[in-house]
Amino acid sequence: MSEVFIGIDPGYAITGYGVISKEGNKYSVIDYGVISTKPEMVFEERLLAINTKIAFLLDMHKPDYMAVEELFLGQNKTTAIGTAQARGVVIVEAARKNIPVYEFTPGQIKLAVTGYGKADKNQVSQMVKSILHLDEIPKPDDACDGLAVALCLANTGVKFAERAVSGYQYGRYGKREWI
Amino acid sequence: MSEVFIGIDPGYAITGYGVISKEGNKYSVIDYGVISTKPEMVFEERLLAINTKIAFLLDMHKPDYMAVEELFLGQNKTTAIGTAQARGVVIVEAARKNIPVYEFTPGQIKLAVTGYGKADKNQVSQMVKSILHLDEIPKPDDACDGLAVALCLANTGVKFAERAVSGYQYGRYGKREWI
Repeated sequence: MSEVFIGIDPGYAITGYGVISKEGNKYSVIDYGVISTKPEMVFEERLLAINTKIAFLLDMHKPDYMAVEELFLGQNKTTAIGTAQARGVVIVEAARKNIPVYEFTPGQIKLAVTGYGKADKNQVSQMVKSILHLDEIPKPDDACDGLAVALCLANTGVKFAERAVSGYQYGRYGKREWI
Repeated sequence: MSEVFIGIDPGYAITGYGVISKEGNKYSVIDYGVISTKPEMVFEERLLAINTKIAFLLDMHKPDYMAVEELFLGQNKTTAIGTAQARGVVIVEAARKNIPVYEFTPGQIKLAVTGYGKADKNQVSQMVKSILHLDEIPKPDDACDGLAVALCLANTGVKFAERAVSGYQYGRYGKREWI
């Protein structure tokens, strides 16, 4: 029996997605691409465009599981607030369709896809291409990232993966007042 | 002709809301309360609970405008990522129903409600009670905050208010690459 995984790299300007199936140890691509929204759009309409397209993808591909990258506050903290809002409107659609959401750090994704937690972007892309038997590296980058996080979940196995939470993982800090 | 405003204080544990109507210079309360989600829930299901209740409130009260507090990264940055995701699933429902969303800083809300941008929580609550002709201060605090941000938009006027964006306001920094 094959299982279908959707991986998402959320962003309010570009959200990348990749849909793969796994049958035994064989992976294949079902779909990948990006959802782009224009800066000229009012922010809540950008979120609606992302939310609507994700709902459409979930209806079309009926994935068993969703994987997303864990959000960290990096250099650009203002962008992170926007990215987090985009992430919210993505995973809420998974919940609406009873699709469990799992999350991974960039290091976990690199490790699962290349066997090396500090692999560079190009090594990840090459492995995505190779594992999925593609002729070329999937473009654009965000779509390739979507496929990578889907592969990460498929490879890790849902038994060993962690459910998505509010930006950290249950029990990691053990501070219930943060929840 | 009266206009209806819904104000939201988003959070993944507690989202406060307040719905008011304005007719000329007369304000009245239509509804207020909170949406609470439990820490035991999977995160995306907490978002779905918030999203579903907001959709219900918008259907029931048919507000003309939505007001939300602007999100800043304060002390607890991890919580901010979760709060931003909750905010995303709130404002996406406004977009779905063509309700424009406006945002305000805490200082703007205090100024609009009390006339003093550095008013304390109690002064704001007292003014909410007074402006809305209530017998008591609305409880809990988050519901009162929802009413305060609704009053802020009603008082400021939509012509002078700023649309919600990704955590900052259009043109404030003028850096399009952040959008």
